[in-house]
Amino acid sequence: MTNWLQKRVRLSPGETALVFEGKQETFEEIYEAVEKLAGKLFARGIRKDEMVALLGKNDRMTFLLIHALQQLGAITLFLNNRLTKKEITFQLANAEVKQVIVADAFVDKVTSGISYEELQQTTYVEPDLCKTWDLSRTASVMYTSGTTGKPKGVMQTYENHWWSAVSSVLNLGLTEKDSWLCAVPIFHISGLSIMMRSVIYGIPVYLEEHFDEEKITQLLESGKISTISVVTSMLERLLKIQGGSYHPNVRTVLLGGGPANKAVLEICKQRDIPLVQSFGMTETASQIVTLPPKDALNKIGSSGKALFPAEVKIADDGEILLKGPSITPGYLHNEKATAKAFIDGWFKTGDIGYLDEEGFLFVLERRSDLIISGGENIYPTEIEHVIGAYEAVEEVAVVGKSDAKWGSVPVAFIVVNEGFDEGVLKDICQTNLASFKIPKQITIVEHLPKTASGKIQRNKLKERHSN
Amino acid sequence: MTNWLQKRVRLSPGETALVFEGKQETFEEIYEAVEKLAGKLFARGIRKDEMVALLGKNDRMTFLLIHALQQLGAITLFLNNRLTKKEITFQLANAEVKQVIVADAFVDKVTSGISYEELQQTTYVEPDLCKTWDLSRTASVMYTSGTTGKPKGVMQTYENHWWSAVSSVLNLGLTEKDSWLCAVPIFHISGLSIMMRSVIYGIPVYLEEHFDEEKITQLLESGKISTISVVTSMLERLLKIQGGSYHPNVRTVLLGGGPANKAVLEICKQRDIPLVQSFGMTETASQIVTLPPKDALNKIGSSGKALFPAEVKIADDGEILLKGPSITPGYLHNEKATAKAFIDGWFKTGDIGYLDEEGFLFVLERRSDLIISGGENIYPTEIEHVIGAYEAVEEVAVVGKSDAKWGSVPVAFIVVNEGFDEGVLKDICQTNLASFKIPKQITIVEHLPKTASGKIQRNKLKERHSN
Repeated sequence: MTNWLQKRVRLSPGETALVFEGKQETFEEIYEAVEKLAGKLFARGIRKDEMVALLGKNDRMTFLLIHALQQLGAITLFLNNRLTKKEITFQLANAEVKQVIVADAFVDKVTSGISYEELQQTTYVEPDLCKTWDLSRTASVMYTSGTTGKPKGVMQTYENHWWSAVSSVLNLGLTEKDSWLCAVPIFHISGLSIMMRSVIYGIPVYLEEHFDEEKITQLLESGKISTISVVTSMLERLLKIQGGSYHPNVRTVLLGGGPANKAVLEICKQRDIPLVQSFGMTETASQIVTLPPKDALNKIGSSGKALFPAEVKIADDGEILLKGPSITPGYLHNEKATAKAFIDGWFKTGDIGYLDEEGFLFVLERRSDLIISGGENIYPTEIEHVIGAYEAVEEVAVVGKSDAKWGSVPVAFIVVNEGFDEGVLKDICQTNLASFKIPKQITIVEHLPKTASGKIQRNKLKERHSN
Repeated sequence: MTNWLQKRVRLSPGETALVFEGKQETFEEIYEAVEKLAGKLFARGIRKDEMVALLGKNDRMTFLLIHALQQLGAITLFLNNRLTKKEITFQLANAEVKQVIVADAFVDKVTSGISYEELQQTTYVEPDLCKTWDLSRTASVMYTSGTTGKPKGVMQTYENHWWSAVSSVLNLGLTEKDSWLCAVPIFHISGLSIMMRSVIYGIPVYLEEHFDEEKITQLLESGKISTISVVTSMLERLLKIQGGSYHPNVRTVLLGGGPANKAVLEICKQRDIPLVQSFGMTETASQIVTLPPKDALNKIGSSGKALFPAEVKIADDGEILLKGPSITPGYLHNEKATAKAFIDGWFKTGDIGYLDEEGFLFVLERRSDLIISGGENIYPTEIEHVIGAYEAVEEVAVVGKSDAKWGSVPVAFIVVNEGFDEGVLKDICQTNLASFKIPKQITIVEHLPKTASGKIQRNKLKERHSN
């Protein structure tokens, strides 16, 4: 297939590609900037099929670099800028990264890398750009921890991104007025998939560095936006701002990261906000099961139906299984985890759910005990491993506690011995965990609730916080 | 991939699939009728991967049969109901057809076959339906004559149909209000592609048996239609009906079969008719190069740009070459013609054209001398072969003559010897050619204009009629 960005420039050079900090740029302008950056990256030795890590934030430069790395045919490891140096170091080693491109604000998070500043000062060399894209090639890698707590690099091919974009358009439609507001991180699949759709559909990305609910509301009222991707906590923050419906051009408020509760749905209905609930993950290159607005109130708590090219089914043990061309071929350098993630060609989500008689999916437990905090996935076992490494801690269990601002935050229950020092534990957490993963509360208990077979009953611990 | 119709029924069972003679049916209702018919076809011995010919017209039963054959996994040879028995016999033999399903009105056109009436009386047997579709399988075969005059069976895979539908949606968009009016034959790719889009997009087909410009105009004014496919002569007939713009829900009037002239474009602009010119053929599973409405008047005579997954380029000799996933894998049982049709992976259209500096395609000569008469492709060489077989004809050349009703009609120039009898020639034409292919005028000349190398100069003959 043709290089998507080059093809888009040929099809609609004068259409808007990016709006960032009020500045509009067309596909032609974006391409020119991307080509220049690609030349600088090329001068720095970056070549086709090489693994290059990118550590940036939602800004124009990071946006351009993502495209530039694709133009060169490099594989981009997307680093979450909220991770600690230690977490990042693990990913860089595990992915066998050759070079790291790092925003000036984050240079301390890597041992060596090319800063944006250094890159800008590099002299351009005419690069070898990929004219065509082999769809089976890996475009991006994103690490997720999974329930085992050990981070795994999810490979996303161009084919995955293509089918994700096509599946979405067959469900949500596409009009000449469309544009997608991206306030979710572009180093997450939620944000990166917006960039991919922009190129494939020929529509603008309104890129926001932070989720500022006042500013987002203004944009949704301006008529410039047709679609926005949000997670539950963002939606709740938006709804706290009083008002009626947004501009009629807003066609879709796409919700990921867990279904909305009834109160939220009622407000959306009253205010005529076209909420579209969905289910997806890094491994499915974003939404793969989606609930259209017309079914939102009939199917409260449902994530919807599998998009046209995809299928969902429930295994005998209740696990949600998925099939479709947007699903990852597997985990980087981790054949064991890949083999474990599939059964008879179906991807095992690790989530428990059911389909109702009309085929709508209901997710009961999101990755058993995953904590979603402000759109970030937090895996309790990862935190438990860090805390458990402190020899004064005998046992530990981490669960989510509902939080007005973040949706959910991690809290820990521990059983300790005489040598325990809370200060030492806090230091351990700070060194090893991104701030959003550090338990907001640590409760010392005599023992943890367990099943007969000795498994910790996390649900019982969660109940302590909801009472 | 999942069986498309079954998937569509699971996604939107209650949405309208077909409107024919005022009767609306949902995808669920359609599927139920299709399943019953599939059971009757199965009882008649039709099985997966078998070549089955279908000879019908634009009506509900033919629509259902097309789906039923797909459900069974049969390969459908689409017979043009305007062909003679002799022409049909050739196609049936060439395609090695096992069975023919024939509308009651056309039973005389085939030596043996199952009539719709007979099929209806067949007792249902539970059929083996295809749960999944291998995209590389051939879904349909349609014969085109090509410039050599010998009809060739174009194979269209499910992949071709899928990408055609997806390419179109990325260009034309998709909304909840969409519906596609099909007054072009469903045995042509123009009509069949509408049926495929309906299933993939989940939108209704408004199926019309004939192109009745009064009735079509009413539909376009009703608000029920978003999109209509037309050929030039249909568009001209529509524009003869006085009026303003159609209902605002009409988003696209998709024009195939040659570009519109300036007068037509001016009327469309005045009347705010969203004309979308396109270029495509049986081999490309419908439109592959498309001109959006906003460029219609800037780019008069252009067919537009290659759709997102496709590419167009011009060979050194001016021939238009195409590449993309909607292009046929080749001609049925005709490796020689297939090999001849491709060069380095590019499909040779046989048409001459150029790209302007902005990349818009202009087709100069449509398949050199192809005559398009009321949307039917007429290949001069095919008629020349028939006439040339009459020993009293020394030389023959057939060209198109412009015609108010049909756009163009074939006329013949012949050089004869003493044994010539016009009555005999007319009999030969009637026996061997569909009525629309029979030359409307036969002119006896002393000699045909030729190049130095002895090639007949058809352009000189065409000029005689335009003066």
